[in-house]
Amino acid sequence: MRVLENITYDELQDNDYATFTKTLSEESLVLFAAASEHIKLTGLDSDTIKNAVFREDIGYGMWASSLISNAFSKVMPGPGSIYLEQNLKFSLPVQIGDTLTVKLTVKEKIANHRVIFICDVQNQEGENVVSGEAIVIAPSEKISLEQETLPKVSINTQKDG
Amino acid sequence: MRVLENITYDELQDNDYATFTKTLSEESLVLFAAASEHIKLTGLDSDTIKNAVFREDIGYGMWASSLISNAFSKVMPGPGSIYLEQNLKFSLPVQIGDTLTVKLTVKEKIANHRVIFICDVQNQEGENVVSGEAIVIAPSEKISLEQETLPKVSINTQKDG
Repeated sequence: MRVLENITYDELQDNDYATFTKTLSEESLVLFAAASEHIKLTGLDSDTIKNAVFREDIGYGMWASSLISNAFSKVMPGPGSIYLEQNLKFSLPVQIGDTLTVKLTVKEKIANHRVIFICDVQNQEGENVVSGEAIVIAPSEKISLEQETLPKVSINTQKDG
Repeated sequence: MRVLENITYDELQDNDYATFTKTLSEESLVLFAAASEHIKLTGLDSDTIKNAVFREDIGYGMWASSLISNAFSKVMPGPGSIYLEQNLKFSLPVQIGDTLTVKLTVKEKIANHRVIFICDVQNQEGENVVSGEAIVIAPSEKISLEQETLPKVSINTQKDG
């Protein structure tokens, strides 16, 4: 069982950074859609519609952003962190199969254990997909926790039934 | 089959608003966690740990935020929208069983089909859980699309197997 250890406010230094990489699989998109009731659309026949950027892209943007919160909670600062604010700018759409790397960089430690982080999400081409800044309360105490195994989730690919 | 119809830039008026309500079930949290690899933690024994706000809350915050993007893509402006920017402030943690209502309000229509929206997510007590503003490109053309049925997702509650 993996153990998660946090990085406390005192341990964090300016310009420290951490990364977290994940590939967008169709499976993870279906799970995300089911969780937030994002849905996929069909009937994309006309060129007008094909050339538009669709609602799925809105979902992809927030899926990519959820990797940022994931990186805060898992990697840096890790367990015990409190998420206060997040600004997001969506630069490019994300497609199934893209491998996204979140990079969190300590920009500035401010009062009351608050830390400003620069957050970038890049695709496998090194292009910025999502970027922004966040304010997180970093933990004051060292915490090591075991990861709980999630219930297994299975996807029935039969779409009608 | 439900049909989604968008609201075009020309149709949107200042102070128009739309709402979208969803209850946070354990199932949807598990799906969200599996999609973004958020995980639940165990071993929350000591009071120190119990009193801290945990990494799960970071996940909850982004789950609540994903309802905002969901509301943009499904409700207002709907299909054909492009998500450009989102600022989020996380005010209160969200718990399983909470019923969250996203309210999107047109704050201002600006150039190039861009619309600034005020985004609030309130719980069943009327307390603000997440709030912020977004910039979305509203669609120029009317689009009506049928919702595609998502593949069925089932959760195996046996956590070890």
